[in-house]
Amino acid sequence: MPKHFDAIILGAGTAGLAALSEVRKHTDNFLIVNDGPYGTTCARVGCMPSKLLIEAANAYHRRGSFDTFGIRGASALSVDFPAVMQRVRAMRDDFVASTLALTDTLGKRSMAGRARLRGPDCVEVNGERLTARAIIIATGSHPFIPKPWQAFADRVLTTDTLFEQTHIGPRLGVVGLGPLGAELAQALARLGIEVSAFARKDMLAGLRDPDINAELRTALAADMPLHTGAQAQLEAVDGGIAITSGDTRVMVDQVLAAVGRRPNVQGLGLETLGVPLDEHGMPAFDPGSTQVGDLRVFIAGDVNGDRPLLHEAADEGHIAGMNALADEVRCYKRRTPLSIVFTDPEVAVVGASTAHLAPPSYVVGSASFAHQGRARAGQRNAGRIALYADGTDGKLLGAELCAPAGEHLAHLLGLAVSQGLRVQDLLAMPIYHPVLEEGLRTALRDASRKLRGPRASDLAHCAPMGSAALE
Amino acid sequence: MPKHFDAIILGAGTAGLAALSEVRKHTDNFLIVNDGPYGTTCARVGCMPSKLLIEAANAYHRRGSFDTFGIRGASALSVDFPAVMQRVRAMRDDFVASTLALTDTLGKRSMAGRARLRGPDCVEVNGERLTARAIIIATGSHPFIPKPWQAFADRVLTTDTLFEQTHIGPRLGVVGLGPLGAELAQALARLGIEVSAFARKDMLAGLRDPDINAELRTALAADMPLHTGAQAQLEAVDGGIAITSGDTRVMVDQVLAAVGRRPNVQGLGLETLGVPLDEHGMPAFDPGSTQVGDLRVFIAGDVNGDRPLLHEAADEGHIAGMNALADEVRCYKRRTPLSIVFTDPEVAVVGASTAHLAPPSYVVGSASFAHQGRARAGQRNAGRIALYADGTDGKLLGAELCAPAGEHLAHLLGLAVSQGLRVQDLLAMPIYHPVLEEGLRTALRDASRKLRGPRASDLAHCAPMGSAALE
Repeated sequence: MPKHFDAIILGAGTAGLAALSEVRKHTDNFLIVNDGPYGTTCARVGCMPSKLLIEAANAYHRRGSFDTFGIRGASALSVDFPAVMQRVRAMRDDFVASTLALTDTLGKRSMAGRARLRGPDCVEVNGERLTARAIIIATGSHPFIPKPWQAFADRVLTTDTLFEQTHIGPRLGVVGLGPLGAELAQALARLGIEVSAFARKDMLAGLRDPDINAELRTALAADMPLHTGAQAQLEAVDGGIAITSGDTRVMVDQVLAAVGRRPNVQGLGLETLGVPLDEHGMPAFDPGSTQVGDLRVFIAGDVNGDRPLLHEAADEGHIAGMNALADEVRCYKRRTPLSIVFTDPEVAVVGASTAHLAPPSYVVGSASFAHQGRARAGQRNAGRIALYADGTDGKLLGAELCAPAGEHLAHLLGLAVSQGLRVQDLLAMPIYHPVLEEGLRTALRDASRKLRGPRASDLAHCAPMGSAALE
Repeated sequence: MPKHFDAIILGAGTAGLAALSEVRKHTDNFLIVNDGPYGTTCARVGCMPSKLLIEAANAYHRRGSFDTFGIRGASALSVDFPAVMQRVRAMRDDFVASTLALTDTLGKRSMAGRARLRGPDCVEVNGERLTARAIIIATGSHPFIPKPWQAFADRVLTTDTLFEQTHIGPRLGVVGLGPLGAELAQALARLGIEVSAFARKDMLAGLRDPDINAELRTALAADMPLHTGAQAQLEAVDGGIAITSGDTRVMVDQVLAAVGRRPNVQGLGLETLGVPLDEHGMPAFDPGSTQVGDLRVFIAGDVNGDRPLLHEAADEGHIAGMNALADEVRCYKRRTPLSIVFTDPEVAVVGASTAHLAPPSYVVGSASFAHQGRARAGQRNAGRIALYADGTDGKLLGAELCAPAGEHLAHLLGLAVSQGLRVQDLLAMPIYHPVLEEGLRTALRDASRKLRGPRASDLAHCAPMGSAALE
C-alpha cells in the first residue's frame, strides 16, 4: 500500500463522498478513511429515517379528516408501533446501502479507522503515517447530550438511538424544538406516544418571524403540550425522569435530546495544522472554497459547523473535491439559503431572514391559509406565509412560512430569490386553480400593494416592436 | 333604469366578474347580465367540486399504504358515498357564495336574463334594448352531449349533474379522458364506483409526450379498465347502457360524458356584430386584447374557446375590463401556458409542447420517480418528468410530467419558463433533501449532460471583483 496520496478524505459521509466523486475525476491515488459506521448521517440517522417516520405519522393522522370527507371506520385504525419502526429501519438500510455502494468498490483506497492529523500534509490511521498533497476533513458531527444527562443512559435517546427502538415511552419528553426536535416530536405524538415538548426559546424550528412561529406553535400544540421559554432540567425519579422547565414539572419515561449536534473533531489533531483555532478548537475556513487558511486542507460538511444541511454538505464536498487537486484554489458561489422543517404544516426559511433586514428598507407581504380554497378542499387550511421584498425595487429577499405544501412553496421561492426576481416577476408567472400557490400569490399581491399601490396589474402590456421581453 | 351604459358585461362567471372589477375602477354606469344559475363554472360545476371529490377519494385511497406504514385496521374503512357528495355540495355552495358576493351588492346594475346582441353597441335583455360604449361577452360554456346520447336522459351525466347525485352507478362508464374525464374517472373509481373508462385517443389528459402518457395510463389502469383508441358508441340495453368501443362491449348503469364543452353563443346574436363568423359561428378576436375586430366588443373566458382554464379566463376578463373603457385598446402579454390535471400522480403540461418543438433543436431531460428517495419514503414512487430545453442555449422551453406533487413541480417550471431561465440557472437553485424536487433535479442534470457534457458542475465560480452575478 502506498504511503503517499494525491488526496486523503477523512469521512465517508455526504461531504466526503461528494469530495470523492470530484477527486476521482483527477486521480486514482486517493484514500478515503472512515471512523465508525459507514453510511451518511442523512441516510443512517438523519433526514431519511425521520422522513420515513413522518410519512407514517401523517398518513395515520389524516384519519382525523376521514369523517368529514365521508369516510367511515377511522376509529378502527391503530398504530403497530414496532411495525412502523421496522419499516423505518428496513427502508433506511436500503438508503444506507446505496451510499455504501460508492466505497465498497474501492478496495484498499477505502479504509476503516480513526484518523489523526499529524500536520497539514500528514495523517495517522491505524498506527500508520500517510502523507497527501491535499487533505479533506469531512468527519461529520454527533448529537450533543449535556453532561448531566449522560447518567440517564438509555432513558435519553438521540437520533443515533431513536430509530433502533421497538417501543418508546409511553411518556416521552422531547427537549429541544429546533428543526429536528419539532418534526420528531410531532411525528411521535401522532403515532400515539405521549409527548411533552420543551424548548429554551419561544421561537421554534429555526423561525425568526413571530407571526409564522405562532402558526407553528398552534399546530404543534394540537398534538402535544408545549413548554417553552425556560431551560429544561432532568432528574431521576422512581425509575422515570422528571423534567422541570420554569414552573412546569412533567414525569416521563424517556427523553429525546434534540439540543443540537457537535463537530467530530475530538482527537482529530486540528492543532497540528499550524493555524489558529477558536475557543471550540475549530480553525477558520473560507465557506466559498472550504479551504483552511492557505493550506491544501479543506473542511466540508457538518464538521465545519457552518450549514449543517445535506444539500450544503454535498456542495461543500464538491467544492473541496474540486479544489483539492486544482492548480488554483477557487471560490464558489454558495446557494440561496433554504431550510425546511417537515412538520405539518411544513416550515421553511428561504433567503434572507428578517433578522438581517432593516425596516423600512423592506416590505412584508403576508397571507393566511385559514380560508384558502384548495387548502379547505383538502381539509388542511392552516398556516401562513410571509415574504420580504426590497422596498425600493421589489426584489424578493426572503420568506418564512408554515403552510400546507410548504416544502414546495419554499422551492419556488428559493428559485425566485436565487434569480433575483421581483414580486412583479412572480406575479407574471402562471398560477393554476385551485392550488396552494394561490395562497403564495395572495402574499405576493399584499407585497405588491405595499410596493406599487392597489391598482398595479399582474398583467404587463405587450412590448412594442413585437419583442418578447416582459417589461 | 338607464338605457345607456358605459359598459355591459354579458355573463357573471370568472371572466365577467374579473372584467367587472376593472370596469368599476372607471365607471359606475355599467350593467352585468347573467343567464341561468349564478356562480362561476369553476365554483359550481368545475374546479372546486371536482377537487373536493378528488381530495376525499385520495384520502380514502391512501389506506392501500397503511399496512406497509404499520397502520392496522384499514379493512374497516368504507366510503359513505352520499356523505362524500353531501360535503362536496356543502363546500361547493360556500365557494359559490363567495362568487355571488360580488354581484349581490350591485342592485339594478346586475340583471338576470338572457342577452341578445342587436349590434356592436346594443343588447336586448328581457325584451328591453340597452346600448353601451363597450360590450364584454363572457357567457361561458356548457358540457357537450352528442345528440344520440341525449335520449338516455339522466343515465348520461355531465359535470352539470354529476355533483347533484347521491348515488352513482354502481357501474359507470366515463367517456372522454381529457383532463376532466381522467381526474373524475379516477376519483370515482377510488370511491368505490365500478368505473370503465373510454377515450377516442390513446394520449390522455392533454399530454403529448408518449413516455409521460404511459405513466398516466399505468396509474389509471390500476384503478379501472381503460379502453382507448376507438370511438365509444352507446346503446340502451335492459335498462342500462351498453358501451361499444372497438371490440370491447361493456354494460354500465350510467355514463359520465366528458367529451368537451361548447361556447354559450346559441341565440347570442353574434351575427349582428357585422364581422365575419367562422364555421362554428364564432368571430375572430385578438387573444392579447380580447377585442373582436375593430369593435369596442370584447370576448373573454370559456366562450372564446381559446384557453378554457380558470386562470386564463380571469386574465381575459381583466384584459377585457381594462380595455373596455380605455382611450386606446392595448395588447397584454399572456402567461406561459400551464395546465394541471389532478389525477394521482398529477399530470401537468408547462410551456411549449413537444408538438411545437422540432428536433434536434431541443434536448429532453427525463427522470423517473420509481426509485426517488422521498417518493419511496411516502409510498408514492411512481411517475416521470420530461423537460424540453433549447439545444443551443439551454433555455427551458417546456415540460410534461405525471409525478407525485406534480402540481407543485409544474409551478416551479412555470416560473422558470416564464422568466426564460436556462437548465443551468435551475441547477443553481437550492434544493433541499429529501424532497420530490430532487427528482426534477435528476431530469435537469440529464438535460445538462446532453447540453454541456457530463462534467459540468451545478456550482458556479464566484465572479471576480466581488460581484454577486451568477456567472
